[in-house]
Amino acid sequence: MRLKMAMIGGGTGSFIGPVHLMAARMDNKIELVAGAFSSDPVISARSGKEYGLSKERVYASWQDMIKNESSLSESKKPDFVCITTPNYLHFKPALESIKAGFHIVCDKPLCLEVEEALELKNAIDKRNTLFCLTHNYTGYPMVKKAREMVCNGELGTIRKVVVEYLQGWLSDKEEDKGNKQAVWRADPSKAGMAGCMGDIGTHAFQLSEYITGKRVKKLYSQLNTFVEGRLLDDDATVILNFEEGIKGSLVASQVALGEENSLSIRVYGTKGSLGWKQMEPNSLLLRWKDAPMQVYRTGTGYEAIGSTASKHNRLPAGHPEGFIEAFANLYRNFAINLIALKEGRQHDQQYDYPGIDDGIRGMQFLDAVVRSSREEEWADV
Amino acid sequence: MRLKMAMIGGGTGSFIGPVHLMAARMDNKIELVAGAFSSDPVISARSGKEYGLSKERVYASWQDMIKNESSLSESKKPDFVCITTPNYLHFKPALESIKAGFHIVCDKPLCLEVEEALELKNAIDKRNTLFCLTHNYTGYPMVKKAREMVCNGELGTIRKVVVEYLQGWLSDKEEDKGNKQAVWRADPSKAGMAGCMGDIGTHAFQLSEYITGKRVKKLYSQLNTFVEGRLLDDDATVILNFEEGIKGSLVASQVALGEENSLSIRVYGTKGSLGWKQMEPNSLLLRWKDAPMQVYRTGTGYEAIGSTASKHNRLPAGHPEGFIEAFANLYRNFAINLIALKEGRQHDQQYDYPGIDDGIRGMQFLDAVVRSSREEEWADV
Amino acid sequence: MRLKMAMIGGGTGSFIGPVHLMAARMDNKIELVAGAFSSDPVISARSGKEYGLSKERVYASWQDMIKNESSLSESKKPDFVCITTPNYLHFKPALESIKAGFHIVCDKPLCLEVEEALELKNAIDKRNTLFCLTHNYTGYPMVKKAREMVCNGELGTIRKVVVEYLQGWLSDKEEDKGNKQAVWRADPSKAGMAGCMGDIGTHAFQLSEYITGKRVKKLYSQLNTFVEGRLLDDDATVILNFEEGIKGSLVASQVALGEENSLSIRVYGTKGSLGWKQMEPNSLLLRWKDAPMQVYRTGTGYEAIGSTASKHNRLPAGHPEGFIEAFANLYRNFAINLIALKEGRQHDQQYDYPGIDDGIRGMQFLDAVVRSSREEEWADV
Amino acid sequence: MRLKMAMIGGGTGSFIGPVHLMAARMDNKIELVAGAFSSDPVISARSGKEYGLSKERVYASWQDMIKNESSLSESKKPDFVCITTPNYLHFKPALESIKAGFHIVCDKPLCLEVEEALELKNAIDKRNTLFCLTHNYTGYPMVKKAREMVCNGELGTIRKVVVEYLQGWLSDKEEDKGNKQAVWRADPSKAGMAGCMGDIGTHAFQLSEYITGKRVKKLYSQLNTFVEGRLLDDDATVILNFEEGIKGSLVASQVALGEENSLSIRVYGTKGSLGWKQMEPNSLLLRWKDAPMQVYRTGTGYEAIGSTASKHNRLPAGHPEGFIEAFANLYRNFAINLIALKEGRQHDQQYDYPGIDDGIRGMQFLDAVVRSSREEEWADV
Repeated sequence: MRLKMAMIGGGTGSFIGPVHLMAARMDNKIELVAGAFSSDPVISARSGKEYGLSKERVYASWQDMIKNESSLSESKKPDFVCITTPNYLHFKPALESIKAGFHIVCDKPLCLEVEEALELKNAIDKRNTLFCLTHNYTGYPMVKKAREMVCNGELGTIRKVVVEYLQGWLSDKEEDKGNKQAVWRADPSKAGMAGCMGDIGTHAFQLSEYITGKRVKKLYSQLNTFVEGRLLDDDATVILNFEEGIKGSLVASQVALGEENSLSIRVYGTKGSLGWKQMEPNSLLLRWKDAPMQVYRTGTGYEAIGSTASKHNRLPAGHPEGFIEAFANLYRNFAINLIALKEGRQHDQQYDYPGIDDGIRGMQFLDAVVRSSREEEWADV
Repeated sequence: MRLKMAMIGGGTGSFIGPVHLMAARMDNKIELVAGAFSSDPVISARSGKEYGLSKERVYASWQDMIKNESSLSESKKPDFVCITTPNYLHFKPALESIKAGFHIVCDKPLCLEVEEALELKNAIDKRNTLFCLTHNYTGYPMVKKAREMVCNGELGTIRKVVVEYLQGWLSDKEEDKGNKQAVWRADPSKAGMAGCMGDIGTHAFQLSEYITGKRVKKLYSQLNTFVEGRLLDDDATVILNFEEGIKGSLVASQVALGEENSLSIRVYGTKGSLGWKQMEPNSLLLRWKDAPMQVYRTGTGYEAIGSTASKHNRLPAGHPEGFIEAFANLYRNFAINLIALKEGRQHDQQYDYPGIDDGIRGMQFLDAVVRSSREEEWADV
Repeated sequence: MRLKMAMIGGGTGSFIGPVHLMAARMDNKIELVAGAFSSDPVISARSGKEYGLSKERVYASWQDMIKNESSLSESKKPDFVCITTPNYLHFKPALESIKAGFHIVCDKPLCLEVEEALELKNAIDKRNTLFCLTHNYTGYPMVKKAREMVCNGELGTIRKVVVEYLQGWLSDKEEDKGNKQAVWRADPSKAGMAGCMGDIGTHAFQLSEYITGKRVKKLYSQLNTFVEGRLLDDDATVILNFEEGIKGSLVASQVALGEENSLSIRVYGTKGSLGWKQMEPNSLLLRWKDAPMQVYRTGTGYEAIGSTASKHNRLPAGHPEGFIEAFANLYRNFAINLIALKEGRQHDQQYDYPGIDDGIRGMQFLDAVVRSSREEEWADV
Repeated sequence: MRLKMAMIGGGTGSFIGPVHLMAARMDNKIELVAGAFSSDPVISARSGKEYGLSKERVYASWQDMIKNESSLSESKKPDFVCITTPNYLHFKPALESIKAGFHIVCDKPLCLEVEEALELKNAIDKRNTLFCLTHNYTGYPMVKKAREMVCNGELGTIRKVVVEYLQGWLSDKEEDKGNKQAVWRADPSKAGMAGCMGDIGTHAFQLSEYITGKRVKKLYSQLNTFVEGRLLDDDATVILNFEEGIKGSLVASQVALGEENSLSIRVYGTKGSLGWKQMEPNSLLLRWKDAPMQVYRTGTGYEAIGSTASKHNRLPAGHPEGFIEAFANLYRNFAINLIALKEGRQHDQQYDYPGIDDGIRGMQFLDAVVRSSREEEWADV
C-alpha cells in the first residue's frame, strides 16, 4: 500500500521542501498527490509542476487545499498532510488538517507557544490522529542504537550529558542580504520567541531527552545575540538538570563561524559512555570502564542483535548513509504505522518517530530558556 | 519531463536492485514502468508488486520484456533499460536492449571479455545510444572536485597514485553458506575471469583513471586466493604504470577482515596532493607544498566557484550525503542528458557519467591483471 | 650554562615528579642537584638515590633543604626550586624559597586562597624572582600558534569560546581504594576549596584566557558531586562572560567515564575560528568564512613564518611530540629567561611561560565558581 | 647504575643527533661522556661544548676517540658507543668500536652491503657485544601490543600485510639546495645502493617483520626516481611474499608531497585485523569478525594485562607520548639489558630492541628490491 501525501509549503527554492520529498519518496511507500507550496500562486503552480502534480491539485492557499482535498473520494484523498512552512505557519494548518481528518507530518519546532502545542495535542487525542514531528536526527540508526543502549542500562546510571549544536551560517546578518532561510528565522513574528534556540536548540534538547529517555526538569540559560541589530538570539549556553540527578550542558550557536551542522552528543554513565556526531553519523563511540573503546557501525551484523538500529539502515556497512536517509526513516516509520492503522494492525514500537509530545516539550524548553536568560534564574521546564 | 525505466534483475532481496531504485527515484526524473526482476516468475512478480508495477508489465524473461516493451506506444514505452544482473547477464540483455532501441544503464563490470565490450561499443555507436555504466563512486561531489583539480593542473604534474579497495566480507567461504551475493561472485561462469578484481578492483582502477584523466599503460599484478577452495582471486596487489610516467599501486581485497567498504585514493603531484575516502565522502584532503593542508567539504560555498562538485550535492554543508546520493547522481546526470537528447539539446559536460569506454577499460584491466599474475610478467592494458 | 634545580615533592611513585624531571632534563639546560622528595625520610632517600643525587643533598624536610641549600656556595647552590607537592603544600614552600633567594617552578593550582596568591605575588615583586606556574598545556606549539593568531586578530573579533576538560578516572571512589593521586585530591584540606575545578578546571580556564588574551569578568557555575560521599566537586558546567562581550562555556569532569585527558578548546571569531585538542596536539584546525578549513601542523615550514610556534617543537612534521615535550617547553623557556637574567640580558618574550598572575587568576576563578554554584548567582572573577 | 655513552656523529645542526641525546637522557639511565661529533674539529668542539662535555673528551676523529676512550679506567670508560653518522659511516666505526670492547647503538640502515652486515654479526658474536639498531618505530607501546597480539594468534592466521611509509620532503631536488639531510641521502657513495628504500623503506620492511614475526621470502619491486637528475630511487612499490603464504604490499615514497612522516601498517588475519599509524601512535585499531571495532590506547589499564605495551609508556592515557619517547624506549631497553649484563643477570625479553639481525635483514631487503626492480623479476630476500 502506498500512502497519499499533501504538502503545505516547501515550494521550489526552499531548503526543507525537497528534503521532505526525497525522504518521503525514498522507500516507495508515499506518493505526493497535492500541495499548497506557496501563498504566491505562481510559485505554487511552478512547484507543483516540477513535483509532477496535475494542476487541479495545486493550491495557493492551504485552506483551499484542506477544504477541497478533504472532500475527495477515499481513493484520491490524501492520507496525511505534510507541513514544511516557517514556524508561525505550523499551528493553524496543522489544527485545520487534523480537524479535516488528515494525519500529520509537521516540521519543528511545533508552533509558537506552549498553549498552541497543548491545543494541538488535544485535537489529536480526540481523533486518534498520527502525528510526526520531524526531529529528523532521531532517524539515524546510531541514534536508535544509542537510545537503546542507554535505556537498557548498558551504560549504568547516567550522570552527565553534553550536547552541542553548532552552525556558522548566521555569523553575518544574512537576514539583510535576502537569504530566504535567514529572513523568516530572524523575524520574531515568524520564528517565534527564540532564534537559534528554536531552530537548532530544540533539536539538541530533543535529542538529549530521546537518547537518555529522561526529562529535563530545570535549566539555567544565557542567550546571546552577537550580530548587531538581530532581533533574536543567535547563540546560547544552557545548564541542564534532568530528572534522577542527571546533569548536562547544551551549547548551541549559529554564529560559530566555520561550523557546518555540528550536532553532537555525549552521555556518561557509571558503566560506560557514548558519543555520536551527526556529521559522522554511521559511527557510535562506546567507552567502557576497563575495556577498549568500541566503535559501533551502521550496517554491520553485530549491531543487529536485538537492536532496532538495523531496521533503520538500507545498506551494508561502509556504504555511508546520511541526512536524507535518516529523514526518510521518519517518513518510513510514520508510513508503517499509518498503514498498520489503516489495516487495523498494532503500532510496531521499533518503528518509532517523534510526535506531539516532543513538540510540547520543545515549546516548554523554549519558554524556559527565554525565561531563565531574561530573569537570570533557574527555570522549570 | 520524467523518464520511463525498465529493469532487468534487481528483484526483492538483492542488494543492488533497491539501490538502483532509490537512486533512480531520488531526483524525481525517472519512473519505473516495467521489469524482469528474476527468471523465477514468482520472485519477479512479487518484486514487481512490491515496486508498485501493474502485473502486465512484469516479466520473468528479459527477452520477453524487451520484445513486448519495445512494441508499446511512445507514451508508454520505456526510455531506457537498467541492467542489475550478475556479470554474466550483462552482455546479452544490453546488446538486445540496444538493438531494440533502448538507452542503457548497466551495472559493472561491463561484461566477461574484451571482445564483448567492443561489440557493445559497436552497437552503441551505430545507434547513438546513451550508455551509463554504474561506476557509482564517480558520482560523489568530492570525486568530481578531485578530478577537476587534477585535470586543471592544480596539483602540478602527477607522479604517484595510491588506490585501495578493501573489504572483509569474503574472509570466510560465504559462497558455501548460501550468501546470495557471494555465490555468483565466486562462480567463474557468472562472475567472469576474476573475483575480487572484477567486483571491486575495477572500481579502484576506474577511479584512478577518472580522477587523473590518464590511462594505465601496463601493470604487474599478483592475484591471491586465500580462502581454500575458492575458484577466483579474493585479493591482489598491482603495480600500475600510467601514461606520462605516473606510477601507482592498487591494493584490493575481499578478505581484509574488518574492512567494510574502504575505497580510497591518494594522488601526488609536484605542487600538491589529494586524498579521498569513500567512507568519509564529503571531505577532500588537499596538501600543498608550503601551505597548511586544506579540507574541502561538500555543500560549502567556496567549492562552488567554477566547480561541477556543487552540482552534485543536494544539501548544505554538514548534512552528510552518502552512497545512495552519489549513485543517484549517475541516474540524474544520465537523465539530464537523455532528456536533452530527446529535446534536441546538447549534452552538458558537467553532468557526466561513466560510459562504454569505462567498460572497455575495465575488461582490458581484468584481462591484464589475470595475465600478468599468471605469467609473472608486466602486461599491457 | 646549565641551571641547578632543587625539588620539593615528586618522589618515586608520584605521577608528576618524574614528568617534571623528564621535562627539565629534555633540553639539557637543567640539572637536578638537591631534593626533599617526601616527608618520609625513607622515600625521600630512595627517590634521591634513584634520581642520581648524592645523599647529603637529599632531605626529608623542605625547610631543611631550603636552609642548607641556600647557604651553599654560588657554584653549588640551586638556581631555582621546583615544587611538585599537593596543592596545600605549595604556598609555604614557595614563599620560603622565594625569601631564600631562589627562583621558582611551581605546580598548579598555585595555592589554596586568593590571599595566599597575592602574598606570593608580593614576595616575588620585591625580589625580581622568576616564577613559573606549570600550566603545561600552554607549552604546546599549536597552543602558541592559536594564541598568536587570535591575538593578531586573524580570526576577527572573538565571540565565543568553548572549552572542555574531561577525564573519567574518578568515576569510582578511587580515594577509598588507596589511589595515591585520588586521596589528596579528594581531601579539602589538601586540595583546597574545589576538586575537579581545582585540578583540571583551572587548566581549562587558564587556557581560555591564554589563547584569547582576554579575561573572564564573571561566570555562572553549577558544581556537581556524583560519587557518593565525595567531599569535593567532581564535575561542573560553567557559563563564562569575558571582557569585550566574549561569551563562553566551560565543562569539566573527572567522572566522564571513558575520557582520558580530553582538554579541548574552540574559539569563534567574526573572520575565522580555531579548534585544538590536547590528545591530538600537533594539529590546529582553522576554519574561515569563505575558504576551506585548514590544518596547521607542528614542525612544518609554513607555520614558522612570524610564529613562535616553531620555537616550541624539536622535530620535523610528522614526528609526534607530546605531553612531556610541551611540559619541557615551560622548563626550557624558564631556563632561557633565567639564564638571560643571570647574564644580564633581556627576557625574550617569545619564550614565555605561565607565571604568578596565572596563579592569582586561578585562585580567583576557583573562588568564583565555588561562590556562584553555592549561591546560584553570577560571580565576578 | 647509569651507563656512559660515547657518540660518533650527531653534531650540532644534525637532525638525528639531538634526538639520540634526548632519547638517551629521558630515563636517566645514560650519560654522555665523550664524542666525535664531526670530522670538522670546530663543529665537533662546538657540539661537545653545547652537549656539556669537557674538552678532552671531544674528538674530531672517531678513530682517535675509540683509541683514547678504550684506554680509560673502568670508572671513566664509556660502556657503549652510539653511531649516528650517515650510512657509509656505520660499518667501520661499528666494527672498530666492537673490537675495542664497546657495546653499540647504531643508526639504520646498518651499513652498505650484506657482507658488511655479516662481518659485523661475526664480530658481535665473538664478543657477546650488545648491539641496538635504532629502528625506533618498534619502540612505540602500540607496536609492542600489535606484535604481541599477532604473535599470540589473537588475529588468527595472518593473510595480508599492507605497509606504507610516505614522506614528501624530497619532492624537489633538495640535495641541490644545500639541505644537509638531503645531500648525503642522495649520494650513492654515502647512502648506499638505495635512496628512499634505504632511508625509510627499511623501516617499513622491518616493522612488517617485527609485528608479524614472519620473514619476507621474496618480493617484486619497482623503484622509481621522479626528481630529474637524482641518482637514487625516491619512490617504490613492492609486492611482498612472506613465509607461510602471507602476502603483502609496501609503498614508500619521499616525493609524496604533503605527507609528513606517514608510516602505517595494517595486518589482516582470519580472526581479526589491526591498524597502526605512526602519526597517531597512541592508538591501535582492532577489528573483529562479529564484534565492534576496538581502539586500544596507550596508558590505559586494560592494555596492561599480560602486555609488554604497558612497560613502554610513561604517562596515563590521554597524555600523548611521541617520537622521542618511542626512541627513548630503545635506549631504555638497551640500558636495562646492558646493566643486567654488567650485573650478571639475564636479559629480560620484554625489554626488547632491534639488533644485528634486523640490520642483516635490512641489507638483504635492499639488495632484493634493487635487484628485482632492475631485472624485473621476483627476488629472494
